[in-house]
Amino acid sequence: MAKKVLIIYAHQNSASFNAAAKNAAVEVLTAQGCSVEVSDLYAMNFKATATAEDIKGVKNAENFCYLEESRAAWEEGRLSEDITKEQAKITEADLIIFQFPMYWSGLPAVMKGWIDRVLTYGFAYTQEKRYSQGVFKDKKAMLSFTTRSLESMFSPTGIDGDMNVTLWPLQNGILHYCGFHVLAPQIFWAPASAADEDRKSMMEAWRTRLQGLLEEKTLSFLSLDCFDEKTFQLKPDVQEKQASKEFGLTAGIHLNKPLPPHNQMKAGC
Amino acid sequence: MAKKVLIIYAHQNSASFNAAAKNAAVEVLTAQGCSVEVSDLYAMNFKATATAEDIKGVKNAENFCYLEESRAAWEEGRLSEDITKEQAKITEADLIIFQFPMYWSGLPAVMKGWIDRVLTYGFAYTQEKRYSQGVFKDKKAMLSFTTRSLESMFSPTGIDGDMNVTLWPLQNGILHYCGFHVLAPQIFWAPASAADEDRKSMMEAWRTRLQGLLEEKTLSFLSLDCFDEKTFQLKPDVQEKQASKEFGLTAGIHLNKPLPPHNQMKAGC
Repeated sequence: MAKKVLIIYAHQNSASFNAAAKNAAVEVLTAQGCSVEVSDLYAMNFKATATAEDIKGVKNAENFCYLEESRAAWEEGRLSEDITKEQAKITEADLIIFQFPMYWSGLPAVMKGWIDRVLTYGFAYTQEKRYSQGVFKDKKAMLSFTTRSLESMFSPTGIDGDMNVTLWPLQNGILHYCGFHVLAPQIFWAPASAADEDRKSMMEAWRTRLQGLLEEKTLSFLSLDCFDEKTFQLKPDVQEKQASKEFGLTAGIHLNKPLPPHNQMKAGC
Repeated sequence: MAKKVLIIYAHQNSASFNAAAKNAAVEVLTAQGCSVEVSDLYAMNFKATATAEDIKGVKNAENFCYLEESRAAWEEGRLSEDITKEQAKITEADLIIFQFPMYWSGLPAVMKGWIDRVLTYGFAYTQEKRYSQGVFKDKKAMLSFTTRSLESMFSPTGIDGDMNVTLWPLQNGILHYCGFHVLAPQIFWAPASAADEDRKSMMEAWRTRLQGLLEEKTLSFLSLDCFDEKTFQLKPDVQEKQASKEFGLTAGIHLNKPLPPHNQMKAGC
């Protein structure tokens, strides 16, 4: 069956490198028979800030809790329409691609707002349905972004530090938290300061990658089974098994060992 | 001379734990003779999304680049008033406290938007003025936030992974990038699921800490001198000096060694 791809796209300029990367994804994936939908957050004037206006009929206005109010609103169909539309797109999608320029080592605010507002408690996760048992465990997701820094600068010996560390809260704390299997990020290193020819090569490499994207292996995270159900600590037998190994298990669950190199950058690491 | 403190505060509810933490900071620091200003982002309806509307007289509307346009606008006094007002507050401040609930392992979108829009290229950093040579190297900053997870879950053996990893892109990639000396974060672990008594203890501990806050030592980051000026790689002699050591230098610049424990959580680690 044809796969459905949702692209969450955040750039102000339709002539930008990010726009070109998004357009390439639409083109190549469509040519492969995928059905591709784009949420163009700036063009949609997508509301970034999580407020009481996101909920029809707030229950406790005097002691407002966004998490609880939005959870109840999701259950009862009282979320604002811009949120429910995005949620419907996620439900349909087999793969979500986030296309954006990295701002301050993270997502641009408008895209963070999409995360904060659309991934509602209940819809995107519950206390039980998280990580490998997450709501979206039958879906894939990936980050595709541009940087201002060169690749060497975002390394364990570079001025900006290891990119695997920077990616952990985004890929584990957001994507894998909801259950998504996470494809290796597509990182366009410093296209703004690159020569035209190098920018073209980057885009060609992306087009080539897109052709096999849906068959790629995903990044390694730990199964929820590895953790004690009550303490959420790694079970003793898992820790013992790793004790003689050189590296920790993931960039975040590293057991005070060296981080497994490329853990958040390459599949199977 | 009396110190000036700016609190960037993001919570929708003035009866929340975050509001109480902000109020405690205002009260204790004011009682110590500090002059304290608060930017209450939700109450201000602070614009989160970086758009062309932030710039008066956009120069290249057809190929809009936010970074370049906002840089030029800052130089020429053409940034929107909400941005310039916040920039004036930063210029005045000796210490900035960010008070917020952690959303998805990061800042709430409205606070990320404050970062994206207010910390303009030129005003907050340049190619030369970054990290230990950053524009704000005579100022301090800190994160003060609530979590939903317990402390044990955000550890090197816990389900959410090491909090030091999650903090790196925020504290190094934003605060230290602009030169701020970063105070240890104030983390309120899961107050929403804590007993009343424990919430009270957390708040008391914060009030006690606030009394000595301005004299605290700051977190350890590397001096810009440690890096080659052209490649932005750690200089060979710095690497050699660390070669026999057990740990890397920081959570991000870890040299493929175990991360220095508590590097982003405690001063001097």
